[in-house]
Amino acid sequence: MKHLRLGGTAIAIFFLVRGAGAQILSGFSATSGATQVAAEKKFDGYLDTADVDLFIKTLSSRPHHLGSPGDQENTNFIASQYKSWGFDVRVETFYALFATPKTRVLEMTAPTQFRASLMEQPLREDATSGQVREQLPPYNCYSADGDVTGELVYLNYGMPDDYDYLRRLGIDVKGKIVITRYGKGWRGLKPKLAQEHGAIGCIIYSDPADDGYVQGDVYPKGAFKNEWGVQRGSVLDMLIYPGDPLTPGIGATKDAKRLDRKDAATLIKIPVLPISYHDAAPLVHALEGPVAPPEWRGGLAMTYHVGPGKSTVHLKLEFDWQLKPVNDVVAMMPGSRFPDEWVIRGNHYDAWVNGAADPISGQAAMLTEAKAVGQLAKTGWKPARTIVYCSWDGEEEGLLGSTEWAEQHAAELQQKAVAYINSDGNGRGFLGASGSHALEPMINEVARDVTDPETGISVLERRRSREEVAAVNDNKKLRDLLGKDAFKIGALGSGSDYSAFTHHLGVPSIDMGYGGEDPGGEYHSIYDSYDDYRRFKDPTFQYGVTLAKTAGRVMLRLASAERLPFDFTAFEKTLGEYIADIKTQLEKARENTELENRLIAGKQFQLAADPTKKLLPPDQKSEVPYVDFSPLENALHGLDTAASALKHRLGEIPMGAGGDDSINRRLYRAEQCLLSDAGLPRRGWYRHTIYAPGFYTGYAVKTVPGVREAMEQRNWLEMQREIAITAVAVEKLASYLNGIAR
Amino acid sequence: MKHLRLGGTAIAIFFLVRGAGAQILSGFSATSGATQVAAEKKFDGYLDTADVDLFIKTLSSRPHHLGSPGDQENTNFIASQYKSWGFDVRVETFYALFATPKTRVLEMTAPTQFRASLMEQPLREDATSGQVREQLPPYNCYSADGDVTGELVYLNYGMPDDYDYLRRLGIDVKGKIVITRYGKGWRGLKPKLAQEHGAIGCIIYSDPADDGYVQGDVYPKGAFKNEWGVQRGSVLDMLIYPGDPLTPGIGATKDAKRLDRKDAATLIKIPVLPISYHDAAPLVHALEGPVAPPEWRGGLAMTYHVGPGKSTVHLKLEFDWQLKPVNDVVAMMPGSRFPDEWVIRGNHYDAWVNGAADPISGQAAMLTEAKAVGQLAKTGWKPARTIVYCSWDGEEEGLLGSTEWAEQHAAELQQKAVAYINSDGNGRGFLGASGSHALEPMINEVARDVTDPETGISVLERRRSREEVAAVNDNKKLRDLLGKDAFKIGALGSGSDYSAFTHHLGVPSIDMGYGGEDPGGEYHSIYDSYDDYRRFKDPTFQYGVTLAKTAGRVMLRLASAERLPFDFTAFEKTLGEYIADIKTQLEKARENTELENRLIAGKQFQLAADPTKKLLPPDQKSEVPYVDFSPLENALHGLDTAASALKHRLGEIPMGAGGDDSINRRLYRAEQCLLSDAGLPRRGWYRHTIYAPGFYTGYAVKTVPGVREAMEQRNWLEMQREIAITAVAVEKLASYLNGIAR
Repeated sequence: MKHLRLGGTAIAIFFLVRGAGAQILSGFSATSGATQVAAEKKFDGYLDTADVDLFIKTLSSRPHHLGSPGDQENTNFIASQYKSWGFDVRVETFYALFATPKTRVLEMTAPTQFRASLMEQPLREDATSGQVREQLPPYNCYSADGDVTGELVYLNYGMPDDYDYLRRLGIDVKGKIVITRYGKGWRGLKPKLAQEHGAIGCIIYSDPADDGYVQGDVYPKGAFKNEWGVQRGSVLDMLIYPGDPLTPGIGATKDAKRLDRKDAATLIKIPVLPISYHDAAPLVHALEGPVAPPEWRGGLAMTYHVGPGKSTVHLKLEFDWQLKPVNDVVAMMPGSRFPDEWVIRGNHYDAWVNGAADPISGQAAMLTEAKAVGQLAKTGWKPARTIVYCSWDGEEEGLLGSTEWAEQHAAELQQKAVAYINSDGNGRGFLGASGSHALEPMINEVARDVTDPETGISVLERRRSREEVAAVNDNKKLRDLLGKDAFKIGALGSGSDYSAFTHHLGVPSIDMGYGGEDPGGEYHSIYDSYDDYRRFKDPTFQYGVTLAKTAGRVMLRLASAERLPFDFTAFEKTLGEYIADIKTQLEKARENTELENRLIAGKQFQLAADPTKKLLPPDQKSEVPYVDFSPLENALHGLDTAASALKHRLGEIPMGAGGDDSINRRLYRAEQCLLSDAGLPRRGWYRHTIYAPGFYTGYAVKTVPGVREAMEQRNWLEMQREIAITAVAVEKLASYLNGIAR
Repeated sequence: MKHLRLGGTAIAIFFLVRGAGAQILSGFSATSGATQVAAEKKFDGYLDTADVDLFIKTLSSRPHHLGSPGDQENTNFIASQYKSWGFDVRVETFYALFATPKTRVLEMTAPTQFRASLMEQPLREDATSGQVREQLPPYNCYSADGDVTGELVYLNYGMPDDYDYLRRLGIDVKGKIVITRYGKGWRGLKPKLAQEHGAIGCIIYSDPADDGYVQGDVYPKGAFKNEWGVQRGSVLDMLIYPGDPLTPGIGATKDAKRLDRKDAATLIKIPVLPISYHDAAPLVHALEGPVAPPEWRGGLAMTYHVGPGKSTVHLKLEFDWQLKPVNDVVAMMPGSRFPDEWVIRGNHYDAWVNGAADPISGQAAMLTEAKAVGQLAKTGWKPARTIVYCSWDGEEEGLLGSTEWAEQHAAELQQKAVAYINSDGNGRGFLGASGSHALEPMINEVARDVTDPETGISVLERRRSREEVAAVNDNKKLRDLLGKDAFKIGALGSGSDYSAFTHHLGVPSIDMGYGGEDPGGEYHSIYDSYDDYRRFKDPTFQYGVTLAKTAGRVMLRLASAERLPFDFTAFEKTLGEYIADIKTQLEKARENTELENRLIAGKQFQLAADPTKKLLPPDQKSEVPYVDFSPLENALHGLDTAASALKHRLGEIPMGAGGDDSINRRLYRAEQCLLSDAGLPRRGWYRHTIYAPGFYTGYAVKTVPGVREAMEQRNWLEMQREIAITAVAVEKLASYLNGIAR
């Protein structure tokens, strides 16, 4: 494919011609591949930007958070649309704990009086921003009720390393209220860490450096956050388990056995409130104490101090705690040959306010895709496997709809689910894709076959161009990228509805979407509106169609492949890279620990510090032992052998032979071997041994999480234990694959 | 010395005892070393913080720029002080071109009307800030007269890479006025590059991100620049030659042959004016066009746009151009044995306004040092060589006093100057030292013998602690640092009075001072005052005494050493590192050029760019050829052999044998071998083949400048030529050293 990009037209044509004659779609024979390509072409023809536009406009026309009239209206609209396209539709309702604010007070009582407005300003230029009556005001869902008064301390992003530095400054948050800015780690970690360190309250604000005027012109002139914008959001401790706080591990049906609220481990115990930079500025300005270190400084026109000082802050929050219906709309098109094999697609439809971008842009693309699948079916085309479209409710609070559904149908899904394909917000730009690496080659084939609407090249080549240009000052990385024909998909952390499928059930999952040319500050604010979207996100709605083409191809190919395109050699290769990376990190940590401990012992930190300022040395760290990786390395070697043998063996077995789909069934269930029964330490809900969101990073993934996080937490015994546990899982997968090959 | 820091008291004592018995000072025998140590101890006893305080207070009591009454008063005060301490004093006067402002107008005429205040606000908290009548207002000396009106373009720091990016944005500064911020490269480069690119005017402002509220509390609450502070400064094109613009290469005596002003190559041809961020904010705010890339954004509370836009700016400047007397105060104490060998110390005394920090803090430390030398002499101690203290005038305009003096006495200095030791502003913190690497071991010995007043350890160990702590996340660098016993001195770029000595005459030079715990935004503003200094720079004046101890030891040891402590193996080692670095850079550039050109040819830059925004790809670059380094490598090898042989041979010759100082005379003149007759390309005044300020960086040094800059400018033929020229110089040094050894 390099030649295409280097302008070698003759070679490009040769390649395409050659391609057309050979097997161009993994999992399809030449004949079935040609049929598939024709179906996909037809499918593309049904996709219309006008549909994307209309769906976004309709579904974002009023606020539609969980349990609201707007939410219910959207449930009904979506269900009726699926029905009209020929799907079997059911609305499956769960009942989950939800909190909405009754009282919100934030004021500074000293050194000056200041009462925070806690409101976003409706704008003439944004038609739906004035729907105040139906809007949830800015708040953090699952904050505790509380009425606290205390000194204020500024804590940057409120992540673990910020606390390390705070300790070196000799400042303690015990009994104080912390103010942190949005960004870096997951929102819910900020109050969780504050609470762990003894803080009595937590304020989170959007600093203009992160998504305000520092990044670009503010709304409505530009897309970035104006002084009034506030990011709402859940602070559920999803890193223990997502979904309804009261029903961990089981579906939150009407009669489910529920925890007492006080026993729900995922509920934060201190009050936490998000505010705008308009409201934050007086609070930050009043802080005293040391000047914040450079990385802590934001974009407000002032010197950032860490605090505390003479400022006293009063935070009072009361919530209405209720069980609310969570309405998942599930639309099925039964498979003609293998109805008990489900290819599942999902995107949530609930929002914090109007949510044109998050999640409606993704929902609209998915609906456009489903509509086209319906049209295709009306022409006589049938999927071999069952296609399932899921419009999830209650994602914003903590992946409620998807998690409860997956927990409720766990056994069935582990039997039937071929894969789960997720999307969420979508916009102009580049393909992003993360998920199960056995599907990486297939995702590359799809990306090869979808054209970018802006440039006319494939979305694969566009994405690769960006990666290459980004690496232009890194010779090694650039040479690596130029030497490859594929792009690497990411691994799944958290932040959208794939979590229960991949982390809890081991269902092969992919999360995808477009973006990168659609930045802004509207996220979870009243400004995430249709007016904002069509100006700044995807003005022509072409990327909605492009997502439909991309995810739609994944669905159609998985639904009709004669041989499901799982490639475990790709998985094994990536796993090998993860393990190598952990070994490198451990070596670095060993050397760094030794060197830093020498500096600490030699008092260099004290000697290098300015004696007129307080900066304590870091604590001495435990030495990094040599850890036995051999169980994992042997398992990896076994997996390498097994995956290669299987690939070779499958090449010998004719595709589609017999009416039985037993090989495919075994292929799509293989990833379940990677689950451990006990789950990850301290969070057994997360059972995948290879992918998990970081316990101390939130959204961001930790690969080989048991091992990696034990290393990062310097828990060497646990690290050794987790190597053994992960090795068992990998061995299990290897022997499972050997079983298929035999 | 590592043991000392690791708390091994017993070993430390052993070390000191052992040290006392052995030769502890390079260049001294055991006996003469003991005498020297005793003299230094006495010398220390004469150093008094009260002197430093008084000198700073006195010399900064009123504005004293070149040619002002305050300057003349200081000339007289300094001369009388030296005299009173027993020095032979003369005031040597040169006559140099100087420009002071008559008219300064900066206004925005569209889209809104705005007239810049162009003034700094006197403060109650700063006693001298209100001396408005004697202050030079904010301006850039040697700006052209001009009256221009045009569109405005924002250009970040106005450095070459900023112009590269501007070209990619499709924006041209031709016929426009550029606004750049202070920082990164030398001030004078900003208008020079603007002029080269066709701009008609240049505004330079101090962004709060660089030395304003982003860095810390602003004056008078803290040390950083308030909204009114303006950095004055020269924009002479010193990278061609420093000193009087009208008398390049010769002393600007009364009757010197002078250029016509229009023929002076170092004078900027467009008007240029410095302003505060108070004045800059409306100008930056009015800009339109693309949003500035992240690295271009400063700390004003707004979105930075590159421009142009509807804003039109009018800049009118008129100057009074006059020849002004430049009064160098030169104080000598004749050597008792070798009066024709001069150990020279210098620091300027002229300032832009009151200049308590720059330069008076350094001047005061030097005077305190000279006073103590005088006291020492009164006890009967005599320097073997002549000690020369130089208080330079007219440094701020372009190193006028030192350059003219060095040019005027060039032949004598190349005969007599053992070394030139420079300082300038001084403050609380860490020893900084740069200069001729043959003196690096000696500087380390001095740093070992001076105690840091804040921590009680040596300034060597304190500096090393800081370097080690700064490298704490870089295992390789930290391990390197921990494995060494010495610290590496820097190489000399430009920015203070050593330039003529080192770059033009090849006199071994060292620039030194303390700092790093004294940051602020007072530089070249009315706020660089005694009040500011004693609050934020060196409140107890102890670092003034510490600088006197440090530079004083260098002077006293050079003045009395039996064997001058030049170590050319140290120089050769460093030169080897420079050459290795150039080779590495060339290899990187070769690979990067090839890879980037592939991306350009493959159109990846266009494909990766947002089509709704204009961002052109970079230009294709010429391929990087293989360059023949062998002449330089052979020369380096020859130098290695010669330096080692000399070191060995000198070890065999008893020190101080005979009354003749011929070996020493040959040692201190050795560095002159490194001068090339023709000088550097396009700037023949700079004759040193190893050290020069960067032609496109200004203050910052370029080592092996002919070769390195040709590489950076991709002038491969010149690079090859400069390798040959540098090799000849290095060979000359090697054969000169061989001559001494024989």
